[in-house]
Amino acid sequence: MTPDEFRRLGHRIIDWIGDYRETIESRPVAPPTSPGEVRKALPASPPELGESLDGMLHDLDQLIAPNLVHWQHPRFFGYFPGNASLESVLGDFLSSGLGVVGLSWQAAPALAEVEEVVTDWVRQAIGLSGAWQGVIHDTASTATLVALLCARERSSGFGLARGGMQAEPHPLVVYASAQSHSSVDKAALLAGFGRENVHLVPCDESHAMLPDALDAAMRADRDAGRVPCAVVATTGTTATTAFDPIDSIVTVARTHGAWVHVDGAMAGSAMILPECRPLWEGVERADSVVLNPHKWLGVVFDASLFYVRDGEHLVRVMGTNPSYLQSAVDGEVRNLRDWGIPLGRRFRALKLWALLRGQGLEALRSRLRRDLDNAQWLARQVEATPGWRVVVPVRLQTVCVRHEPPGMEADALDAHARALCDAINRSGVAYLTAASVNGEWIARVSIGAEMTEREHVATLWEAMRAEAAKP
Amino acid sequence: MTPDEFRRLGHRIIDWIGDYRETIESRPVAPPTSPGEVRKALPASPPELGESLDGMLHDLDQLIAPNLVHWQHPRFFGYFPGNASLESVLGDFLSSGLGVVGLSWQAAPALAEVEEVVTDWVRQAIGLSGAWQGVIHDTASTATLVALLCARERSSGFGLARGGMQAEPHPLVVYASAQSHSSVDKAALLAGFGRENVHLVPCDESHAMLPDALDAAMRADRDAGRVPCAVVATTGTTATTAFDPIDSIVTVARTHGAWVHVDGAMAGSAMILPECRPLWEGVERADSVVLNPHKWLGVVFDASLFYVRDGEHLVRVMGTNPSYLQSAVDGEVRNLRDWGIPLGRRFRALKLWALLRGQGLEALRSRLRRDLDNAQWLARQVEATPGWRVVVPVRLQTVCVRHEPPGMEADALDAHARALCDAINRSGVAYLTAASVNGEWIARVSIGAEMTEREHVATLWEAMRAEAAKP
Repeated sequence: MTPDEFRRLGHRIIDWIGDYRETIESRPVAPPTSPGEVRKALPASPPELGESLDGMLHDLDQLIAPNLVHWQHPRFFGYFPGNASLESVLGDFLSSGLGVVGLSWQAAPALAEVEEVVTDWVRQAIGLSGAWQGVIHDTASTATLVALLCARERSSGFGLARGGMQAEPHPLVVYASAQSHSSVDKAALLAGFGRENVHLVPCDESHAMLPDALDAAMRADRDAGRVPCAVVATTGTTATTAFDPIDSIVTVARTHGAWVHVDGAMAGSAMILPECRPLWEGVERADSVVLNPHKWLGVVFDASLFYVRDGEHLVRVMGTNPSYLQSAVDGEVRNLRDWGIPLGRRFRALKLWALLRGQGLEALRSRLRRDLDNAQWLARQVEATPGWRVVVPVRLQTVCVRHEPPGMEADALDAHARALCDAINRSGVAYLTAASVNGEWIARVSIGAEMTEREHVATLWEAMRAEAAKP
Repeated sequence: MTPDEFRRLGHRIIDWIGDYRETIESRPVAPPTSPGEVRKALPASPPELGESLDGMLHDLDQLIAPNLVHWQHPRFFGYFPGNASLESVLGDFLSSGLGVVGLSWQAAPALAEVEEVVTDWVRQAIGLSGAWQGVIHDTASTATLVALLCARERSSGFGLARGGMQAEPHPLVVYASAQSHSSVDKAALLAGFGRENVHLVPCDESHAMLPDALDAAMRADRDAGRVPCAVVATTGTTATTAFDPIDSIVTVARTHGAWVHVDGAMAGSAMILPECRPLWEGVERADSVVLNPHKWLGVVFDASLFYVRDGEHLVRVMGTNPSYLQSAVDGEVRNLRDWGIPLGRRFRALKLWALLRGQGLEALRSRLRRDLDNAQWLARQVEATPGWRVVVPVRLQTVCVRHEPPGMEADALDAHARALCDAINRSGVAYLTAASVNGEWIARVSIGAEMTEREHVATLWEAMRAEAAKP
């Protein structure tokens, strides 16, 4: 493709995206797609001859966009806010257009140093001290895996450099609450701890981990010849946005020599609000922290920030140094390949830079406060309506709701909750996620899409009541 | 940012990228950046107030672009071809603009199904049978880690579901040649095998793994109570583009029950050329294959294709199923989160789709053949010039060159080779990588940037001779 053809199509794509965002509210939030529908509409074999990408834009309109859930829609309340602010989108365009790969500092110096700067900007914005150093990973799943690998090596005295986990006579144990994200369990299994050595710690009624129970579990494990290795404490659990008490957890973990990883994938963004920081009090004493600017904060997916206090340990665990990657300046620079699993790295810092620079912290804080207000507003409407209940206290922007018509039995209530979510999603009016909380299925309303204003929450609430009232 | 402001800036960025690509040849390939130079030029703290991103474009011109190695430059011969074809860049723009996240099929149906289709297109293009199923990962480092995790679980009878690697009485062993990529060693260590259990198999003079030596190593390990678990066979090694004999390796591995992972990260792209496929004969009998369309083939980073024959096994190892991700159609669809480490997934298939559709296979094949010809041409020039030597036979598009002035001693020759590469890179005329081959430092010329024509290779060769002739 010539640069001229790129300009012509590029301008069309810019306009397409501008129109998509401008008119997104007129689309159903979720599509009625059947499995296999998109696949069947595409050619089964790759084209031998190229064609103008104008045809691809046609397919975008006819086949792709109509078969997507629109995460940027103002009535998207599913999963978590997965914002792709237009500032960050433009930053990402620059990354793709430059087409550079950050194998090492020397392979792309500006890529490495802008990443150092913007991860440090976010560090300041969320109130972490200068003792922390950051790096961008793709997702919190990867960051949590890296954290557990760091913990595994610290606890085993670098067992991997010798005999591997297989030589470890005393099993290493990972702790998390039953409310922790599925990626914690997955990371522990991939890192080779074994399911028997992932111990779920009981929670209080707010779904926060009980530090005394953690201490008891660690003591019992020690007595049985096992080694407490790592605790994953969650700042804002997925189902209900509960907050594990970091400070007490660190105190317990330190007694037993365990690594503390703080999973703030979604709620970490809230720490740009000073009034939210008490929710993760004690975080300074943890070993690693992850938060995803690609969620509520607004950076287009993917950009997950992983902070550690001991960067040297991370490099000892993750570092490689083949001849073709060595350079004269290695002693003076940070080679981010040694801070994560992949060797090659995108210039992801550009999209984070563009968001922070284009919006500024004040605007970001004000948007997040709007969402907190909207969540409180919805909770008040629910509580004030007979037959409806807010299942757990609203700590941030997630509202867990259950409709309990008089006389309906427990099993029927669960089916009713799931049917309610399905009906809303099928209607196209809004999108929300059903989840199981305390053994009960509920409707989980996650507020925080960039375009979501009070009126959109009100529309959702109206739709929920209307659906629930149907016979 | 309003859609109007997005359109205004977006058009500017399209033009900026068009100009960047059009004039890239006039830039020095690599910058003279000193460590810390970019960092110091940026504000130490994040902005409180937003500003127009016009200022960011100014910084792009003044600070970012001048401090990057230009991977799209026609005289870029470093590392590997890291092409970002403009078709794929436009596809990536659509991904960012849509801002959807593929947590599951239901969260973005078209994302999941386009990925199924285009990974199948590439499968056909490289001549793999219909027994293979593909998924897009970020990099081959991740894909290789996933392959070793799959192997670990198969060999241990799903040890992770029980006691973890720690409970394994018989150490599992991973095999690769000493020429395998650094990510193999890293993946084996991260997966918990332990360095003692990564066995490097000897190579022949062409740097290809010796199957008999593999067999002997596996027998010795079995006799010592260890379990052969996985072999990573490389299709195109990093330093010299050597080819391990897949067919014989699979025969040996099968005898011992070991998983075979084929690392075709760079050279896998060559398999769109039928005449290259004998180089990985036997690949059909392997368990997993990785190739990176984000290298020679031309998809903007990152898009790594991972193929397996037993998708069910992959899902058993990597799958999760929390309540908030369950959907009614789970039995009918492929949830790609269970095919890799991250939960969230970008719509990466769009950039691969755009490349294949915009260029077509014929044009891709013709470009790769051009590069193979250019490599042979350079090798002939080198061989025909007194004092110069091609260190290993040129199998694909990498030419390993050493200049050996009469009377210079071995140590001095190594320093001379590294100084030659440094001087070329500092000059801005071209960019290439020094590497250590057979204990000797050499200049490694990796040909295959999309814009690289014969004249650019000739310019490099002229610059190399001119530098080498300097006193």
